[in-house]
Amino acid sequence: MARVAYQGVAGSFSHLTAVNYFGKEHLFLGRESFEAVFEALKTKEAEYACLPIENSLIGSIYENYDLLGVHDFPLMGEAYTRIELCLLALPHTEMGQIKKVFSHPKALLQCQRFFAEHAGLEAVVHADTAGAAADIAQGKELSFAALASREAAAYYGLQVVKQNVEDDARNYTRFFFLSSQPQELSGNKSTLIFTLDHVPGALMRVLASFAEEGFNLTKTESRPLVGRPFEYLFYADLEGEGVPQQFTQHVKTAKILGQYKRGSL
Amino acid sequence: MARVAYQGVAGSFSHLTAVNYFGKEHLFLGRESFEAVFEALKTKEAEYACLPIENSLIGSIYENYDLLGVHDFPLMGEAYTRIELCLLALPHTEMGQIKKVFSHPKALLQCQRFFAEHAGLEAVVHADTAGAAADIAQGKELSFAALASREAAAYYGLQVVKQNVEDDARNYTRFFFLSSQPQELSGNKSTLIFTLDHVPGALMRVLASFAEEGFNLTKTESRPLVGRPFEYLFYADLEGEGVPQQFTQHVKTAKILGQYKRGSL
Repeated sequence: MARVAYQGVAGSFSHLTAVNYFGKEHLFLGRESFEAVFEALKTKEAEYACLPIENSLIGSIYENYDLLGVHDFPLMGEAYTRIELCLLALPHTEMGQIKKVFSHPKALLQCQRFFAEHAGLEAVVHADTAGAAADIAQGKELSFAALASREAAAYYGLQVVKQNVEDDARNYTRFFFLSSQPQELSGNKSTLIFTLDHVPGALMRVLASFAEEGFNLTKTESRPLVGRPFEYLFYADLEGEGVPQQFTQHVKTAKILGQYKRGSL
Repeated sequence: MARVAYQGVAGSFSHLTAVNYFGKEHLFLGRESFEAVFEALKTKEAEYACLPIENSLIGSIYENYDLLGVHDFPLMGEAYTRIELCLLALPHTEMGQIKKVFSHPKALLQCQRFFAEHAGLEAVVHADTAGAAADIAQGKELSFAALASREAAAYYGLQVVKQNVEDDARNYTRFFFLSSQPQELSGNKSTLIFTLDHVPGALMRVLASFAEEGFNLTKTESRPLVGRPFEYLFYADLEGEGVPQQFTQHVKTAKILGQYKRGSL
């Protein structure tokens, strides 16, 4: 039985994604912050971690890009999870009784149409989606509801009053799975981290070398290098078999964060 | 006399940067949010705007990248401002009297060494740096101080108790200047926005065309295209004379956001 760290509480999208990937027989450890998830790998409290890296509506989760750059844990996989938000309340609550709806600010923003159609509902900010469900389950307030996953209802004994209240069904989060131990490089997708010399055309030469070796670049990201104003740490996701070789000739520093099986939407 | 919108209050780094660039004889309009700055251009309350886009320690200000992509106002210039944080308090306050220090969370984070060296001081989060200075000036509390610009002390009649308390002197913010009116394309730096077809090597071909025409890519950024999961809107900053021509053959959509004189650190 493996121990898997994630940020949040049971029923959160990170938790559901980790259970889907590793299987429910394992031990899943909810942590308060992304930093604490890395800490769990470092202290060996957990062998694996599940980390959101990008959302199709919101964009990159930059804090996690920065943490991947600072720490040195290899990637072992990725997965895409569709973010479906449901209105959860105490059992036997009816729609008309609900006055306040608690959830993560981004989740509330993704349900603007639902709030427009139900003018009597007040959106209230909570630290996370499943955490809001857990809090409602502990109280006795029939006028409170949460926007969270369908699975959070099961975890906390709540009722799904209304399902899929999100505005946009094309709402997916991409997750990375990390290991505390070195991983074999195998699969059809790779993630690299590199820095460049401050010379014209440097990034172009790296991307050209990926193309020449037959890799398809699916995502790039850049984050500031602290102490080197307006220089960047680059991240690249590549589809293709094997590991790119040539790019190391065009970079200042390079690291292959992992190679793994490509996830699908 | 021109009207220039910025986010924040007098003495903020946005305000100081706008005054430096346009000259102090103009009218500077502080707004509550970045969105409200764009709104001021749209309603013609302001002819110009000053907007932070990137910080050397924190990275891109993604909200402003998104707003630049959504709205259609041309860039007319850029500037780099060094972020120097000073401890400001009411006149005649001595260091030993100060108990609470108010500032923007990012500013507090950038002064960790100062707080470690003065264990008696409590860091308190405020919406912004100069706003904290303004609030302290309105009160009578000798135990309160703010972390803000030297100029904020002058604006609000406060005293500089200690200057340059930031951990890292290499702390610069890059600002864009926008106009409500079309601008001539001239200068040695350009900012472009484009989208790509979902084919291998697409980004590489665009960057290669920049290099072939003699442009030096200084920054790229990408943000999600809402409703098209894991497709991106790309931003590129280029140094070089003239306007790139060839890249339009390799993109799906393209827009030159502006050409302007390169700022310096």
